[in-house]
Amino acid sequence: MMALPKIVVLGAGYGGLMTTVGLQKELNYQEAEVTLVNQNPYHYVTTKLHEPAAGTLDPEYARVEIASVLKQDKVKFVQDRVIKVDPENKEVHLADGEPLKYDYLVFGLGSAPETFGIKGLLENAFFIRNLNGVRLIREHIEYMFAKYNTLKEDRDDLLTIVVGGAGFTGIEYVGELVDRIPELCREFDIPREKVRLINVEAAPTVLPGFDKELVDYAVKYLEERGVEFRINTPIEECTPEGVVLKGGEKIDSATVVWTGGVRGNPLLEEAGIETARGRVKVDEYLRAPGYEDFFVVGDSSLIFNEEERPYPPTAQMATQQGQHLAKNLTALIRGGSMQPFKFDLKGTLASLGRGSAIGIAFGKKLFGTKASILKRINDWRWYYLIGGLPLMFKKAKF
Amino acid sequence: MMALPKIVVLGAGYGGLMTTVGLQKELNYQEAEVTLVNQNPYHYVTTKLHEPAAGTLDPEYARVEIASVLKQDKVKFVQDRVIKVDPENKEVHLADGEPLKYDYLVFGLGSAPETFGIKGLLENAFFIRNLNGVRLIREHIEYMFAKYNTLKEDRDDLLTIVVGGAGFTGIEYVGELVDRIPELCREFDIPREKVRLINVEAAPTVLPGFDKELVDYAVKYLEERGVEFRINTPIEECTPEGVVLKGGEKIDSATVVWTGGVRGNPLLEEAGIETARGRVKVDEYLRAPGYEDFFVVGDSSLIFNEEERPYPPTAQMATQQGQHLAKNLTALIRGGSMQPFKFDLKGTLASLGRGSAIGIAFGKKLFGTKASILKRINDWRWYYLIGGLPLMFKKAKF
Ligand SMILES: Cc1cc2nc3c(=O)[nH]c(=O)nc-3n(C[C@H](O)[C@H](O)[C@H](O)COP(=O)(O)OP(=O)(O)OC[C@H]3O[C@@H](n4cnc5c(N)ncnc54)[C@H](O)[C@@H]3O)c2cc1C
Ligand SMILES: Cc1cc2nc3c(=O)[nH]c(=O)nc-3n(C[C@H](O)[C@H](O)[C@H](O)COP(=O)(O)OP(=O)(O)OC[C@H]3O[C@@H](n4cnc5c(N)ncnc54)[C@H](O)[C@@H]3O)c2cc1C
Repeated sequence: MMALPKIVVLGAGYGGLMTTVGLQKELNYQEAEVTLVNQNPYHYVTTKLHEPAAGTLDPEYARVEIASVLKQDKVKFVQDRVIKVDPENKEVHLADGEPLKYDYLVFGLGSAPETFGIKGLLENAFFIRNLNGVRLIREHIEYMFAKYNTLKEDRDDLLTIVVGGAGFTGIEYVGELVDRIPELCREFDIPREKVRLINVEAAPTVLPGFDKELVDYAVKYLEERGVEFRINTPIEECTPEGVVLKGGEKIDSATVVWTGGVRGNPLLEEAGIETARGRVKVDEYLRAPGYEDFFVVGDSSLIFNEEERPYPPTAQMATQQGQHLAKNLTALIRGGSMQPFKFDLKGTLASLGRGSAIGIAFGKKLFGTKASILKRINDWRWYYLIGGLPLMFKKAKF
Repeated sequence: MMALPKIVVLGAGYGGLMTTVGLQKELNYQEAEVTLVNQNPYHYVTTKLHEPAAGTLDPEYARVEIASVLKQDKVKFVQDRVIKVDPENKEVHLADGEPLKYDYLVFGLGSAPETFGIKGLLENAFFIRNLNGVRLIREHIEYMFAKYNTLKEDRDDLLTIVVGGAGFTGIEYVGELVDRIPELCREFDIPREKVRLINVEAAPTVLPGFDKELVDYAVKYLEERGVEFRINTPIEECTPEGVVLKGGEKIDSATVVWTGGVRGNPLLEEAGIETARGRVKVDEYLRAPGYEDFFVVGDSSLIFNEEERPYPPTAQMATQQGQHLAKNLTALIRGGSMQPFKFDLKGTLASLGRGSAIGIAFGKKLFGTKASILKRINDWRWYYLIGGLPLMFKKAKF
């Protein structure tokens, strides 16, 4: 009997988990040996992390136990941290376990924060990246609020939150905080007017690249709820005391959350693979340049649209890549040929807290409650894709 | 018309609030000018503070808005911080407002932590003293748990909680933590066995002064739930890293909570009044020695029993003092004479978390659920005393 082809999938994010769930659906028993590696026993729903980071959602609703969506006879799950990929020797090194050999590798370890060289950012800011990290942000903010009333001095910096970046993630996070701050004020006996929420953006507009009418709607909505925007204003340095803006202005703030951008996972560069800002410009079959067996999905992959501009890294992109790649890998293993991947942009929605959102879907601009409902339905779709109706009903908050 | 006699009550704790509520019941309209001063707009239920400090109770259930229990036509409420009492000039100095003149003063500002000269304690430990302080303790513990999983190193000190003192408050707090820790472990993905809860006591026994059978019950109950007791072991120093015990052993701990004892409020000593450990040995009418118009109730007062041993400072004592003093002050104002105060010990109950307690009531030893229920009924009684049935039904958790 021939040895089964070994498929190793790294990362149970949108891209990796979708590939894995697709493979276990497509492949017959004993057609291939599929292994999924992830550092946590759970998948976290990255697109929802701004909510537990603000404290508006129990993290329970932003995670799925990986074991609960895998079929054990078709996929082996390894909980470990990937420390190195070695495409020459076709193996993956883990923090704790033995190296894994592969015939096909799917790299889906997500992104790393892009700091644009801003001094002190990595050391002093928080990042909305994973479940452990967002729980820390939530607890940090609550701790600062609790501390405020126990001190003799007026430490207004404890009640000042700076969100760096007014892109998609930044705006969604600010939207959640706008809902959360009045709750925190009630809980900790703090007057609302004491709390400052400042959103700093280097670009000349909030939500760069978005339709102007939608941007204006978002800005008005958030400003009415107390958000101070500092547009066209790069952060020059982040210190333990707050941020220094270009021009020298200092904002004292105990909580700086950076959402200004992501780059590819550093393990790719470290493996000697060609990257741009850490991301791999994959071919039409999602392969790293020069490799037949090294696929990249999700935030670490780079794909260009017809105008030769890069698509932004999104869950939508990662999901479609995963679905497509599962079919292609199945074809390969059966001796068939792969189909080229084409991204199909269905729409873009950004939430503005619990009750509102903006975006484009079905070719139409959407605002307010309607957009918010659509956004939620889209979250449910993800649970449906990976775990069917039972998971959807368990995790969806109606 | 003669000026009305001015009664000023300092502190809306058990002693001060009971006095005030008693006065507004006893006195007729326009018989006296009663002013209550308290630094917060709310009364906090000190005897329950170990619960929000552990995170097992929403602080909402351990507080009462003062305005909701006062009759505005009979009592004036001043929200301010007392910074000095001046018995020679019969006035009270406030942090923000004008000084208050009085004819009769009721001092009920509670206690201050007794550190027994332990180095670093005031700077590095937490104290279960007031609502702001216990919210800080809860948030601090949660922050340490959240931090643990975001660090590369194994920082076990983040998951180590040291409670200094195994008296009444210490044991009640440890009992709450025993309930809380498994919840925290679930919430932050931390294995229970990683968390240490250490109760350090200088005296040769847990709950010094308690009946041995009750002490043994409590120790067994708590040890079975993972508490490590270090009896006969004084803390020598508290540092930002943890505690140093007598003999030199160090315990690395990010959370040290000191419950080892209280002394009288320092404002009394500062006013030149004779004190022992900050407490005033009051006469049978609850007056400071040498004064006709200066009454002390609650933790700042010192009363001896028939064997010439001091009664421990309790809410039970403060409540009875307040009830008695309201009657005496009314008599004085009406030209009558005061009755001597006699403390009537009804019983003593210490909770061991949600489901258990120990103590003595109706002359009988009580353990477990029965004691726990009695303890809760006793909490309800306090709400009834200050706010009647409506407050009791609002605040009681059934
Ligand atoms: C707050 C927020 C809101 C967003 N909203 C939207 C939205 O509304 N719509 C949208 O389309 N996109 C949205 N995005 C972007 C979207 O979340 C990402 O594009 C998507 O998650 C990328 O998927 P991925 O598979 O590349 O990686 P991820 O989903 O980030 O998953 C990576 C996985 O790899 C694991 N991993 C990482 N390193 C290692 C290692 N060394 N060893 C083992 N395991 C490892 C991680 O634990 C994780 O499970 C949002 C992003 C954020 C932060
Ligand atoms: C965790 C815990 C559990 C306990 N359990 C029990 C129990 O089960 N049974 C029991 O009998 N006793 C118990 N006690 C003891 C009991 O709580 C105290 O004896 C009681 O609260 C003393 O009442 P008090 O009126 O002296 O002061 P407190 O109740 O402490 O009130 C003092 C008031 O004065 C205010 N204040 C203080 N300083 C100033 C200032 N400078 N200016 C303005 N306002 C000020 C405070 O805000 C507060 O409202 C417990 C104590 C603790 C900490």
